[in-house]
Amino acid sequence: MKRVFATPQDAEAAFYDALERLDLDAMMEVWSEDDEIVCIHPGQPRLSGYDAVRAAWQRIFQGGQRLKVRLTNAVQMQSGMVAIHSLHEHLSAPSERTAGMAVTTNVFVRAAHGWRMIVHHASPAPTVTQEVPSDSPKVLH
Amino acid sequence: MKRVFATPQDAEAAFYDALERLDLDAMMEVWSEDDEIVCIHPGQPRLSGYDAVRAAWQRIFQGGQRLKVRLTNAVQMQSGMVAIHSLHEHLSAPSERTAGMAVTTNVFVRAAHGWRMIVHHASPAPTVTQEVPSDSPKVLH
Repeated sequence: MKRVFATPQDAEAAFYDALERLDLDAMMEVWSEDDEIVCIHPGQPRLSGYDAVRAAWQRIFQGGQRLKVRLTNAVQMQSGMVAIHSLHEHLSAPSERTAGMAVTTNVFVRAAHGWRMIVHHASPAPTVTQEVPSDSPKVLH
Repeated sequence: MKRVFATPQDAEAAFYDALERLDLDAMMEVWSEDDEIVCIHPGQPRLSGYDAVRAAWQRIFQGGQRLKVRLTNAVQMQSGMVAIHSLHEHLSAPSERTAGMAVTTNVFVRAAHGWRMIVHHASPAPTVTQEVPSDSPKVLH
């Protein structure tokens, strides 16, 4: 029995919980079992299809690196059965005192058994962001 | 009068055409006029909102760098009024003989006046990809 996620927010919370706990089964419960899912880890080649996405998470989790993920700057868009979330992921590995930021697009669809992830696109981002363009100089005509 | 895009593919073609021609008005016709649109240029901070997205394209186009973009490896997902396209962008600037690749997620929604872009997330990618996971070594249990 797979878990049922009643909202895209539930599915997203389960995704990051599985990531922090290095739990492959819990991670793959979040994903749609579809050949057209897409997962992009920061700076890595794009993976498409359930098997390729699962294999990559398996390699990551077998590496054993525990990360804490703090999420900020959420922009959520929803239309019918599709939800698109844009987030900043603040990643820290306590054992190595490393920290980094990724900017991430997560897409969820509502299927027969609740919401599932179909896209996770994470990419390296500058840690100092320019969220408010009015604070930054602009080139004017 | 804004152009009407009958399909997400039409909107996407107009996006890349505007990018190659450095045409700001044509570029911004593709985007939804919404505060919750998101645009991420490779390695850059996330931009959200029509004004911030427009200002960034304006800066890029005023730079005057002409790029040719070749698109490959499309994975297209559609559900109702939302289309999600995953692409590889092969970028080349003939004047400088540079070339690079970005992996890109484009999201379009169907609004009252046709399809519009709501997300463009482009990030640097290795030029040698591992598209077919069966070709790459896997860690097995």
